[in-house]
Amino acid sequence: MEPLQKAGILVEALPYIRKFSGKTVVIKYGGNVMLGDHLKLAVAQDIVLLRYIGLNPIVVHGGGPEINALMERLGKKPSFVNGLRVTDAESMGIVQMVLAGKVNKDLVSLLGQCGGKAVGLCGVDAGLMEATRLSPELGFVGKVSRVNPGILQDLSAAGYIPVVSTIALGEGGESYNINADSAAAELAVALGAAKLIMLTDVEGIYEDPGDRGSLVSVLDARRAREMIAAGMIAGGMIPKVEACIRAAEGGVNRTHIIDGRVPHSVLLEVFTDTGVGTMVVA
Amino acid sequence: MEPLQKAGILVEALPYIRKFSGKTVVIKYGGNVMLGDHLKLAVAQDIVLLRYIGLNPIVVHGGGPEINALMERLGKKPSFVNGLRVTDAESMGIVQMVLAGKVNKDLVSLLGQCGGKAVGLCGVDAGLMEATRLSPELGFVGKVSRVNPGILQDLSAAGYIPVVSTIALGEGGESYNINADSAAAELAVALGAAKLIMLTDVEGIYEDPGDRGSLVSVLDARRAREMIAAGMIAGGMIPKVEACIRAAEGGVNRTHIIDGRVPHSVLLEVFTDTGVGTMVVA
Amino acid sequence: MEPLQKAGILVEALPYIRKFSGKTVVIKYGGNVMLGDHLKLAVAQDIVLLRYIGLNPIVVHGGGPEINALMERLGKKPSFVNGLRVTDAESMGIVQMVLAGKVNKDLVSLLGQCGGKAVGLCGVDAGLMEATRLSPELGFVGKVSRVNPGILQDLSAAGYIPVVSTIALGEGGESYNINADSAAAELAVALGAAKLIMLTDVEGIYEDPGDRGSLVSVLDARRAREMIAAGMIAGGMIPKVEACIRAAEGGVNRTHIIDGRVPHSVLLEVFTDTGVGTMVVA
Amino acid sequence: MEPLQKAGILVEALPYIRKFSGKTVVIKYGGNVMLGDHLKLAVAQDIVLLRYIGLNPIVVHGGGPEINALMERLGKKPSFVNGLRVTDAESMGIVQMVLAGKVNKDLVSLLGQCGGKAVGLCGVDAGLMEATRLSPELGFVGKVSRVNPGILQDLSAAGYIPVVSTIALGEGGESYNINADSAAAELAVALGAAKLIMLTDVEGIYEDPGDRGSLVSVLDARRAREMIAAGMIAGGMIPKVEACIRAAEGGVNRTHIIDGRVPHSVLLEVFTDTGVGTMVVA
Amino acid sequence: MEPLQKAGILVEALPYIRKFSGKTVVIKYGGNVMLGDHLKLAVAQDIVLLRYIGLNPIVVHGGGPEINALMERLGKKPSFVNGLRVTDAESMGIVQMVLAGKVNKDLVSLLGQCGGKAVGLCGVDAGLMEATRLSPELGFVGKVSRVNPGILQDLSAAGYIPVVSTIALGEGGESYNINADSAAAELAVALGAAKLIMLTDVEGIYEDPGDRGSLVSVLDARRAREMIAAGMIAGGMIPKVEACIRAAEGGVNRTHIIDGRVPHSVLLEVFTDTGVGTMVVA
Amino acid sequence: MEPLQKAGILVEALPYIRKFSGKTVVIKYGGNVMLGDHLKLAVAQDIVLLRYIGLNPIVVHGGGPEINALMERLGKKPSFVNGLRVTDAESMGIVQMVLAGKVNKDLVSLLGQCGGKAVGLCGVDAGLMEATRLSPELGFVGKVSRVNPGILQDLSAAGYIPVVSTIALGEGGESYNINADSAAAELAVALGAAKLIMLTDVEGIYEDPGDRGSLVSVLDARRAREMIAAGMIAGGMIPKVEACIRAAEGGVNRTHIIDGRVPHSVLLEVFTDTGVGTMVVA
Repeated sequence: MEPLQKAGILVEALPYIRKFSGKTVVIKYGGNVMLGDHLKLAVAQDIVLLRYIGLNPIVVHGGGPEINALMERLGKKPSFVNGLRVTDAESMGIVQMVLAGKVNKDLVSLLGQCGGKAVGLCGVDAGLMEATRLSPELGFVGKVSRVNPGILQDLSAAGYIPVVSTIALGEGGESYNINADSAAAELAVALGAAKLIMLTDVEGIYEDPGDRGSLVSVLDARRAREMIAAGMIAGGMIPKVEACIRAAEGGVNRTHIIDGRVPHSVLLEVFTDTGVGTMVVA
Repeated sequence: MEPLQKAGILVEALPYIRKFSGKTVVIKYGGNVMLGDHLKLAVAQDIVLLRYIGLNPIVVHGGGPEINALMERLGKKPSFVNGLRVTDAESMGIVQMVLAGKVNKDLVSLLGQCGGKAVGLCGVDAGLMEATRLSPELGFVGKVSRVNPGILQDLSAAGYIPVVSTIALGEGGESYNINADSAAAELAVALGAAKLIMLTDVEGIYEDPGDRGSLVSVLDARRAREMIAAGMIAGGMIPKVEACIRAAEGGVNRTHIIDGRVPHSVLLEVFTDTGVGTMVVA
Repeated sequence: MEPLQKAGILVEALPYIRKFSGKTVVIKYGGNVMLGDHLKLAVAQDIVLLRYIGLNPIVVHGGGPEINALMERLGKKPSFVNGLRVTDAESMGIVQMVLAGKVNKDLVSLLGQCGGKAVGLCGVDAGLMEATRLSPELGFVGKVSRVNPGILQDLSAAGYIPVVSTIALGEGGESYNINADSAAAELAVALGAAKLIMLTDVEGIYEDPGDRGSLVSVLDARRAREMIAAGMIAGGMIPKVEACIRAAEGGVNRTHIIDGRVPHSVLLEVFTDTGVGTMVVA
Repeated sequence: MEPLQKAGILVEALPYIRKFSGKTVVIKYGGNVMLGDHLKLAVAQDIVLLRYIGLNPIVVHGGGPEINALMERLGKKPSFVNGLRVTDAESMGIVQMVLAGKVNKDLVSLLGQCGGKAVGLCGVDAGLMEATRLSPELGFVGKVSRVNPGILQDLSAAGYIPVVSTIALGEGGESYNINADSAAAELAVALGAAKLIMLTDVEGIYEDPGDRGSLVSVLDARRAREMIAAGMIAGGMIPKVEACIRAAEGGVNRTHIIDGRVPHSVLLEVFTDTGVGTMVVA
Repeated sequence: MEPLQKAGILVEALPYIRKFSGKTVVIKYGGNVMLGDHLKLAVAQDIVLLRYIGLNPIVVHGGGPEINALMERLGKKPSFVNGLRVTDAESMGIVQMVLAGKVNKDLVSLLGQCGGKAVGLCGVDAGLMEATRLSPELGFVGKVSRVNPGILQDLSAAGYIPVVSTIALGEGGESYNINADSAAAELAVALGAAKLIMLTDVEGIYEDPGDRGSLVSVLDARRAREMIAAGMIAGGMIPKVEACIRAAEGGVNRTHIIDGRVPHSVLLEVFTDTGVGTMVVA
Repeated sequence: MEPLQKAGILVEALPYIRKFSGKTVVIKYGGNVMLGDHLKLAVAQDIVLLRYIGLNPIVVHGGGPEINALMERLGKKPSFVNGLRVTDAESMGIVQMVLAGKVNKDLVSLLGQCGGKAVGLCGVDAGLMEATRLSPELGFVGKVSRVNPGILQDLSAAGYIPVVSTIALGEGGESYNINADSAAAELAVALGAAKLIMLTDVEGIYEDPGDRGSLVSVLDARRAREMIAAGMIAGGMIPKVEACIRAAEGGVNRTHIIDGRVPHSVLLEVFTDTGVGTMVVA
């Protein structure tokens, strides 16, 4: 490509840079889309770029596959109820080690290689997320009861990129495993974020899952609930859509479900008019 | 072009954005390269983009053709000695009106349309540039004797883009017409700028002006002086090269003579490794 | 005069200095009262003094006579409708050059000679004033539709004296010529100024223009409107009085029409109880 | 006097206001020149005026006559050695009560009436002045051993006028009576003051005390020491001149002995070229 | 005692330190409880400790016994009406000298010896307290009409411990003697203090003064008023209880009457759950 | 114990609180002294107390026993050379998960329960610690090559307690396992800490290990090196003593080896004159 064309593309980004300058963007980056070094690097570059051009990105990550792998090595069989991991005390320790000790720090390191000053946290740090038990049968699976976003705001204001593992603190000091989609939504609401981006392993939401041409660009909360009720949105997509509804109704104007398998999809979302994937609105 | 490619290009810019984040860049934008609305818009977009991605651009402009035009309408014949405009008291008034009242405000307005908050100044404002008379025969043509860069630093720190007309204040309160190349160099030195970019109407400096393939990428001050002495650098290019030498020897590590007729040449210079045009070094 | 008496006079000013310490004062300085170097110097000294003793002066200037002079030299005949200059595109260019390039910078230079750090602006700079067309027949004569006073506040807070040429930016990027009285009022309202001072070439407003003893000290808006309706206030005084009414009703408690032909009339107004000229109140 | 003349006088002060803007001025105001309400008011007005026009005045006061009065009422006979009060423990208590409890607060109140926000301190407050015993025979008469000027700088920076009683803290927590001239000099040096003004009950220093025409305008330290040795400077003037020498040699460029019996002599000193009284220089 | 036990006690204080971190506590320290060097030192240590561990203590003091002593030495007979000192002009001078010149500075010095940076003030300083005459027969006894707490806030924010003598400024510049209990309450309200502590020479308030076991822990305003009406609270305790009621009703959640004869009773009050003495609540 | 005695003990701490107010204290808390919930709580209370009373504690932790436990569960046999863990790539992953994901977050949670706002970090976060490989045979065991303490300073200044896992970043983005004693020393030096406290499972250093009475209070670097050479200091104590020497020679005036098995030994060290354990000095 000609240098001239390249410059033109930078200039095309200008209106979007202006629009989001100084705004907070929460990016949910799930374990299922941490696919291959090349793609992970592209995600990290996007996030660092957002930071340098004046946005405040906050990264929220999961890490299901890596948790499963360690559990299996330790002879524990992962089990799920409605897509949520049954988490006994021992599993909770494993979840925390994998998320806060491995996935988080790997992401922090990758962002650092791209020139970002990232700081890894979990909900326990500075009391960021408090939780209550979701249901007795799930064990240490929690529901966020309160967000204390001060540490994220302090770090953002000082130029850092916070990276959050979705573990929260219970009233008695115990840790809870929080669904990462839901945690991202709660953080976005508490931060008054301008945007919530869910990186997934699908293109977005389809009217007809069998028809790739039926991708929905904008989905309002009412229709989203109908589609869930009708089974048109199903499985692991349900918590993602519910998280978007929660965020949209909590004041986050733009919530997006996008395809994390496409390199630089975060930039494409932020820097194009039509965006990519499906936007859920209140 | 595919969105994906576009995103890739944004990401390619990341190392340059990091490198110049928070740095000051002085851009000399002469009247000879204010050519056509499209090209002027491209220059303005480049400058606003630099501002949004964290650099501190300072624009220094000339306006020879527009000064000539008004002088002629007022029945005055422009005359030059060694490329410097002979400036009697009346001409000085015309120079000031055209530069500070027309060219400057047109640029400020254009930057505003691109989303920048630009503020137009001349050397008289807040005592920015002081001058002494260069030679009796030239009248009110001055040589910068002192720069008080506080107002530029204050405006940059508050997020504005300063745009400077090259008029300076004499000891007796009289205005002086300052060569814009030279003014840009003095400002770059006083500001401790990381870069000085001279937008010109040529590609750069050639070993052999007849051979387009002989463009010099990097030129050191000694060789530049030789080329001037040998007449290889001549005419209006002399003050530009001398300004670059002055800036380079005054601590500005990167001074560039680039082709302002190429759209987005400022971005190309900042965001590519090889740069464009000729870099003059100490 | 005895030194002792002089000291006494400084001390008499103390209550006024205390009263206006930290307050913003907008001073409209019209072209008709830029009379003679001595008088202009006195005005500049007054303004710089206000700055040093802790007030925030903002200067708004016109420049009718100088505009006429250049127009005539360029073979254009000034024409007016209801005291407003009919401004075609070419005239607008002339107005802008004369105001922003000559009158403004001359004032800035004069304030600099008195020890002030003045910065000249017009409504185009940092988007200070936006305007819409006042009426088709007047061409590029505008009405202020919005003031973005940030740049004035930033400059005042940093110790500068802003000097404003009354040109504003239209929606399409075109410049508009704004009546300076009206612009001063709009700026005073947007800044929450404590005082608006209109320097004119009369002593104030008379009940009976033939009777110098009938000068009105305080005039309320209702009576002012009656006097305009009755023709008792006429000609160029109408926009001045209307500007005062606009400012007074917009929250500027003290708006004054004073005689700019008297040296140091600004100081006299600020530093005496009775003031000078006519005060218009809501 | 005409208002016009008054305004002219304010303007004459402008160069002095500019010159001392932001500078610290220490004013020693002795008990012997606290003469009559009218004169005291004039001194207070001068100090408040300095504060409002941007200087940082620090007032240091004595109070000999009032101390004598209370001592006599309490049946104690004041006694002096070389002009220094012999101060036994009981006398020290009286000195402190009169200075810090009466003279200081009266001055603070008077400055308040003139619109200043004054805060009364003595050397005990925030450890401002530490002292050691000057000589056994003088009892609790001290010599300043250390100044901790932080509290004065904090108060000045916040817009207050500090008023200091010249009592200092000994190593064992005991209070010492400090000569006010000497204390003023030490504070001026520790603060890096631009000026030290000693208000006295004479016009200044004379070559020939019998000849009013022999007032010395500028006296250098060497000559001052000669005049003391020769008895030409004698009595209570010795500590004043020595304090000026100490301050001048400690970096205070301008130290002045002026006639506090002349109303507004502080303003006259600051706002005229020749000043009044005698300036002592290093 | 074992070091280990000592450490344990520090740790026990942690919840109280957290609870009051950054909060303002007004401590009224009356002349009747300035008993013996040892006890005074303990009070000063407590106050300095509060400062170092992050609270903002403000000390308000009286000094009745010392005032009486000086009055008697000067041949004036103290007289009281309803517990308030009849204060003629001469007495007012004595009150001010003793409070602001002696008691205040002694306290400041003592706090300094304990490592605190204390600054002594009275209501005259920076216009801290304004008053009107309470009743003609009492002379210069005032009632606080307005508090300007800026100086206290400025000093606290800069790490100083303000120590306030209860003298206030009348409209005509005259000083008034203010009851110290009442002054402490007004200051606590104006500062939005978290706590008001009255150090007294009794254990607290008793249901039955004859029965040491009947000490009341918590007293609400209604019951307190009944007890005053019934004569169960009498004499010098009345103004203390009324001051607590005033403060409690003015928003100070915790107001305490405690026994200043017990060493470190301030710390005991702040650092134990039950507190000591009697707490008055709204 | 009587409340009175308790208050007395708080007051005894005052001189130490003053001395260390605003100072940084690095506390190395090794896995071998994380013994029992009660003792861990005591350590956490001490650290939170230091924070509340104005010090800046930085916690550096190890976690050997927990690393061993997980390695064994995963079928890996821990092996050591000269007390350093041989760390292959897989072990490095385990070390990081255990330290950053478990031990760190448990400590953060415990500090949170005591009222501290703790934030867990490792050397990867914000590029805190960079390392190079120590020796080929040890695998991913690193030596700190550079500390970037900005994130610790930012967090301390904002009131947080940083808790650091001793993992560092290699040039190629790989993680290194760092000896915690050594890491604590490097951080203390880089932060200009006032104190380094090593919590160990011995009382300190003995002249004669068989004689409990031979505990050395103060040990200088020269003698410490002799004792190491002579085998008097051996095993796991060597890296601790070497870390103290490194810190002491790097400008940390007070480095301490104390007995972490004694509850509140951190407080005892900070708040007593003699301290506890052995102090190593340069």
